[in-house]
Amino acid sequence: MSPVKVLVPDDLGVKVLGESPALAAIRYEPGAVWPADGHDAEVVVVGFDNAAAVGAHLAELPRLRLVQTLNAGYEQWLPWIPPGVALSNGRGAHGGSSAEWVVAALLNIFRDLRSFGDQQAAGVWEHRSTETLIGKRVVILGAGDLAVNLAARLAPFETEVTLVGRRPRAGVRALDDLADLLPRADVLVAMLPADASTYRLVDGAVLAQLPDGAVVVNAGRGGAIHTDALLAELTSGRLRAALDVTDPEPLPPGHPLWSAPGLLITPHVAGSTEGAEERAWLVARTQIERHAAGGIPSNVVAGPGAAPE
Amino acid sequence: MSPVKVLVPDDLGVKVLGESPALAAIRYEPGAVWPADGHDAEVVVVGFDNAAAVGAHLAELPRLRLVQTLNAGYEQWLPWIPPGVALSNGRGAHGGSSAEWVVAALLNIFRDLRSFGDQQAAGVWEHRSTETLIGKRVVILGAGDLAVNLAARLAPFETEVTLVGRRPRAGVRALDDLADLLPRADVLVAMLPADASTYRLVDGAVLAQLPDGAVVVNAGRGGAIHTDALLAELTSGRLRAALDVTDPEPLPPGHPLWSAPGLLITPHVAGSTEGAEERAWLVARTQIERHAAGGIPSNVVAGPGAAPE
Repeated sequence: MSPVKVLVPDDLGVKVLGESPALAAIRYEPGAVWPADGHDAEVVVVGFDNAAAVGAHLAELPRLRLVQTLNAGYEQWLPWIPPGVALSNGRGAHGGSSAEWVVAALLNIFRDLRSFGDQQAAGVWEHRSTETLIGKRVVILGAGDLAVNLAARLAPFETEVTLVGRRPRAGVRALDDLADLLPRADVLVAMLPADASTYRLVDGAVLAQLPDGAVVVNAGRGGAIHTDALLAELTSGRLRAALDVTDPEPLPPGHPLWSAPGLLITPHVAGSTEGAEERAWLVARTQIERHAAGGIPSNVVAGPGAAPE
Repeated sequence: MSPVKVLVPDDLGVKVLGESPALAAIRYEPGAVWPADGHDAEVVVVGFDNAAAVGAHLAELPRLRLVQTLNAGYEQWLPWIPPGVALSNGRGAHGGSSAEWVVAALLNIFRDLRSFGDQQAAGVWEHRSTETLIGKRVVILGAGDLAVNLAARLAPFETEVTLVGRRPRAGVRALDDLADLLPRADVLVAMLPADASTYRLVDGAVLAQLPDGAVVVNAGRGGAIHTDALLAELTSGRLRAALDVTDPEPLPPGHPLWSAPGLLITPHVAGSTEGAEERAWLVARTQIERHAAGGIPSNVVAGPGAAPE
């Protein structure tokens, strides 16, 4: 059986997929015409490029059966997937890194590392007790790869973790349970995908149910939190927050969030760590190998093989 | 059977021990004469006070059988324990908090949170990839309560953790193995008790075996690391470090460590978190209850019942 042709947008893809005898990787330039030997490709791997520029050319590939993304988000590709073609995402490659960022942000806040950094800069040795993760109740909005990774990392810190998802199941509470969970939560973490159902899910009414001093964390998509509502709670000093994603994003110069008290901001770096590209390509290879073997990739999110919503 | 009399140095001790029917807690003032109804006490709990001031009076208690400390360190009490009296420490109360600090410090360094804090202060959204704990090889010098707590917290972060102790056993490598472990370690954590055998154990020769960019962490006692040797490695930019304990301690104003590059300093706060006193008293109560029931407290470190070195 001849290997399955796969169009890849970078050299790392050529290298990682090249290690599989079932696949023949061919490099393409995103947005340019497809290479001559790639017109019979069955698979296209798409990266972080402009979806329209690449997507408009997908219909030119008559044997295309699978589009594989390198990241977890895939919404931007949905309008461009031809009929009969499956879309599979990079779930599993970035969950660990994003979950790690959430723990980093929480420990930074509870262990007061910014303030101790100021003391260090001033050359002052002044002891005081701080908060701790021990005993904290953490509610995670989201029950996907990122949330499960976070729950695993928080477990040994003697925390009490609750996952909340749109489809309640074993170990996952329903959105309707939030009213019971929020008033006793120390931390609310949003790790939600970007779609209509999650837009501003964390609004003023949700925030108002959190106790004083609670920490709101966003490591999913910026739109999941109502920015003005959060800003009001930060400005009054009632809540604290850590945001790796914002709405708007990037956060423009002079936006009031930059100077809000009790807030830690990083520029969408939760999933951006060394080795992330390699991990993404390894996930992609596993998915494409399953397709090449006649199976359905486990990460299919749209088209043939996708689970019904 | 009448309850065992226990002399305690604070009101929290009266409250926590008072919940045990086997114990009768009596408050004493550290350094003052013992209270009249406490002369027949079997147990004295000692806190963070001057050991000599309290220790010099221990011989005045004819029925004394157990001295219980509230923290893990106990060296300062050894010269004051009368013959036939056991010394038991607070092992188990602070391990979680100190281990948490180590993870906080490592994540702060690898996820570049200080630098992102500077960007936030300047109102600048500028994305870049950072290091991650994922895949890091961590060598922990020490195999006690703190080290075991740290290993448990690091495990879900996809790290490779090795414990090194004075007595090699299952899961604990020998000090002699350091020469094999250090050249491929990304992180070296010292969680050692203060005694003659650990003084400056991490010296210039040990540090020189670490690869460029490695991170040295001290969350045990300051004297375990040779300060000048570490300072030289920091100044040259070859190694990075996080210190919660220093030698000298407190670090005096103007000491060169304050301005060393690649260094995170906190003022001996790793074990100082909210709830730490309660956790210490709960450990003490468990130990004293075991004595009251005729057994040997599991944390005995000297005197009757202590394990041979």
